[in-house]
Amino acid sequence: MNLARYDDTIAAPATIPGTGAITVIRLSGGRTFDILDKVVTFSHGSASEALPNTIKYGNILNSDGSVLDEVLVSIFRAPHSYTGEDSAEISCHASSYIASEILRLLCDAGARSAEAGEFTRRAFINGKMDLSQAEAVADVISANSSASLHLAMSQLRGNYSSKLNVLHDKLLEMSSLLELELDFSEEDVEFADRGKLSSLLEDVLAHIRMLKDSFKYGNEIKNGVPVAIAGRVNAGKSTLLNALSGEERAIVTDIPGTTRDTLEETVIIDGILFRFIDTAGLRDTDDPVEKIGVSRSYEKLKKASVVLAVIDVTSSEEENTASITDIAKRIDPKNQKLIVLFNKTDELAPNINVSILNNSVLSTENKTDIIYISAKTGFGLDELKKRLSETQKDKTFNSDDAIVTNLRHFSALAEAEKYLLHLKSAMSSGVSNDLLAEDLRQANYALGIITGEVTTDELLGNIFAHFCIGK
Amino acid sequence: MNLARYDDTIAAPATIPGTGAITVIRLSGGRTFDILDKVVTFSHGSASEALPNTIKYGNILNSDGSVLDEVLVSIFRAPHSYTGEDSAEISCHASSYIASEILRLLCDAGARSAEAGEFTRRAFINGKMDLSQAEAVADVISANSSASLHLAMSQLRGNYSSKLNVLHDKLLEMSSLLELELDFSEEDVEFADRGKLSSLLEDVLAHIRMLKDSFKYGNEIKNGVPVAIAGRVNAGKSTLLNALSGEERAIVTDIPGTTRDTLEETVIIDGILFRFIDTAGLRDTDDPVEKIGVSRSYEKLKKASVVLAVIDVTSSEEENTASITDIAKRIDPKNQKLIVLFNKTDELAPNINVSILNNSVLSTENKTDIIYISAKTGFGLDELKKRLSETQKDKTFNSDDAIVTNLRHFSALAEAEKYLLHLKSAMSSGVSNDLLAEDLRQANYALGIITGEVTTDELLGNIFAHFCIGK
Repeated sequence: MNLARYDDTIAAPATIPGTGAITVIRLSGGRTFDILDKVVTFSHGSASEALPNTIKYGNILNSDGSVLDEVLVSIFRAPHSYTGEDSAEISCHASSYIASEILRLLCDAGARSAEAGEFTRRAFINGKMDLSQAEAVADVISANSSASLHLAMSQLRGNYSSKLNVLHDKLLEMSSLLELELDFSEEDVEFADRGKLSSLLEDVLAHIRMLKDSFKYGNEIKNGVPVAIAGRVNAGKSTLLNALSGEERAIVTDIPGTTRDTLEETVIIDGILFRFIDTAGLRDTDDPVEKIGVSRSYEKLKKASVVLAVIDVTSSEEENTASITDIAKRIDPKNQKLIVLFNKTDELAPNINVSILNNSVLSTENKTDIIYISAKTGFGLDELKKRLSETQKDKTFNSDDAIVTNLRHFSALAEAEKYLLHLKSAMSSGVSNDLLAEDLRQANYALGIITGEVTTDELLGNIFAHFCIGK
Repeated sequence: MNLARYDDTIAAPATIPGTGAITVIRLSGGRTFDILDKVVTFSHGSASEALPNTIKYGNILNSDGSVLDEVLVSIFRAPHSYTGEDSAEISCHASSYIASEILRLLCDAGARSAEAGEFTRRAFINGKMDLSQAEAVADVISANSSASLHLAMSQLRGNYSSKLNVLHDKLLEMSSLLELELDFSEEDVEFADRGKLSSLLEDVLAHIRMLKDSFKYGNEIKNGVPVAIAGRVNAGKSTLLNALSGEERAIVTDIPGTTRDTLEETVIIDGILFRFIDTAGLRDTDDPVEKIGVSRSYEKLKKASVVLAVIDVTSSEEENTASITDIAKRIDPKNQKLIVLFNKTDELAPNINVSILNNSVLSTENKTDIIYISAKTGFGLDELKKRLSETQKDKTFNSDDAIVTNLRHFSALAEAEKYLLHLKSAMSSGVSNDLLAEDLRQANYALGIITGEVTTDELLGNIFAHFCIGK
């Protein structure tokens, strides 16, 4: 591992120059205060002598001695800064011209432009946070619902890392047991703790499986819970999508088969992001374009966590039974939740009791929710939202658990699991302890990748390249 | 004048939430620290007890006790803050979700959302700056060249106001002379200082005229010096515009008359913003659409400070003479600078000496610059840029003078001038002193409008409505 500490001082705007009222320019590295004292004419004293966590007022001058801008400079001293280095934040007027001039002056005085994510990368290198926390910084910034923010903030604050460290400690315990046996191998000692080793292994595997299982939930919280809106043509699927999203997203017409492609709309309900996916009407068709749409609809249906089967109450019971049966047989009741929506209740004569429409197909499916709605008038939509929100609360995870939200972590966990399963089968087939130790080392290595205990410049490059400049 | 001081505490983002690495939220007003202590859980101490110009670290919690975000809070105490009030800046992660949640929590704790420009408005009300300085804040933010920034910064730093105050003092001196005469009016005293009054009046009028004259320059520095690119169809005007701006802005083809409407492109040369205005080819045409374009071209020509006459060196001398004559007769040599560009030198056979193309029409016009260029290859464009930059250095103003950049100020100066001219003619026709005093009062009032000594809520509303929220 070659992770050189950085000697140079970096600078970059931390807000987008030219927008808002102020622009903040960040500076970090050993020469921060030297550079500040060259670039800023402070009203009192110097940056080098300033107390940590104080704000200094000063002018930045052009080369001709005129004032480029009046600025406030926040002083942070190592190690009590975001990066762990000496650093500063310059607040200037929100002009992109001023920001670029200040950056030019800082670079003339010895700073260099920061690369994407370089401040956070330095925070990681300097031990201010581990890699999963650094990744959480990006997740916090991009979080768009309270649930996803909660997960990201929990990860940023180290809850996730501390739970991974428990796993790590258990693997270390296994290692020490194995080493004990290795030490005594020549003496052919009966290994007293083989039972303990097995039970530790099962325990670790169970933990890893739980983390892996949390990825589907974590990913949905981060990127939105996929909800497919399925049903026959003209059952009102697009109208429902529009009603849920509150804007005219899908083209709604009375002509059957108007929606040819799948459309998506995200809506936050109870702090959880849902991705509603409108699907082309499910029906037999000879139109080749529509055929593709229908086949895509079935694909989307498979990937959804929740399927809303939209049924036109004004259609015949026979037709509706067929429609619900068709959708129900395509979903996996263990992993997918089906909600049947009897739509167009506004078109029913007022004296019809909607409960009589209850369908014999559904009465056998206890787990299926049935809601009577009118996508057109909005009737029943609050109930639908409530049920959708509940589908997430039914999950076996709660957001204080360690939840995997990151594909990189999921892959590392799968890698660790692979070696541990290999270790398990090797143990039962009696292979030598040094081979067992190798499996254990590999599993440990895979877990170390998550928190950055094991890392490479390439890995760091990949992670921080997705950060913005100035973070 | 009813300018109530504000008792409430306002909050708004000072950077655009959801972009960049951090978002800064401003808070200002008497309850700033109370509100902070309710909303932020500081790691040490409280905002109310914090020293001025220090930075405190803390967490902002959701209602369920979980952490919404980790923040840094900068503490400013009245009167040493931007607004002159107790105020603070909260730095949070750059998530629009977090920013809106923090704003909600601040408002729940007693703050209210700031209106556009309200922080700067408070700075004005609290005497931290006069009105022309407050206006300069907006100009500094929108400045897009070093010259315009220099003017705005000079105004922000009070240079402009101090020069207006000299005028103001002279008007006061005139008032006291008049009052002296009024006091002795019943005694029918020969007014000894009528001569002094007249000379003061001439002095003030000359100053006002100079300020008014500076508006054209100030406006051009702020909004760009208008440079018209004129010439016959297919002389290479669009190619020149593209070459100057460095991008394919105008559609360039070989078909004469391609550019039907006027196009603009701004380019900064030597720190000065120039607005290059491509005009439709000047030629007689029967095409009604092109006719409108040609007539617009002549309009644009009149408004330009510099006119570039683009001549195709490969055309006949006769044609080119006609073209230059046509352009030259439409411009005002006192206020407009003509530069003749002999374009397409790349198409000349190498053995032709371009100097022989020099035209007899031009030899009589000493003030006209002639440059040989090739818009296609870039030949001569550096020379052109140098000459353009020089046109601005020739101006009788330099940027340390008080330069009017604001139409509101120009109108107020014109108003003051009107009353002073009226005063002048009234003095010579021997009207009574109390009528003279009224003219003087009106002139003084008009000048007071610039610095905000005289103001109304409506005027302030108009000015600050153009600020962004958070400034």
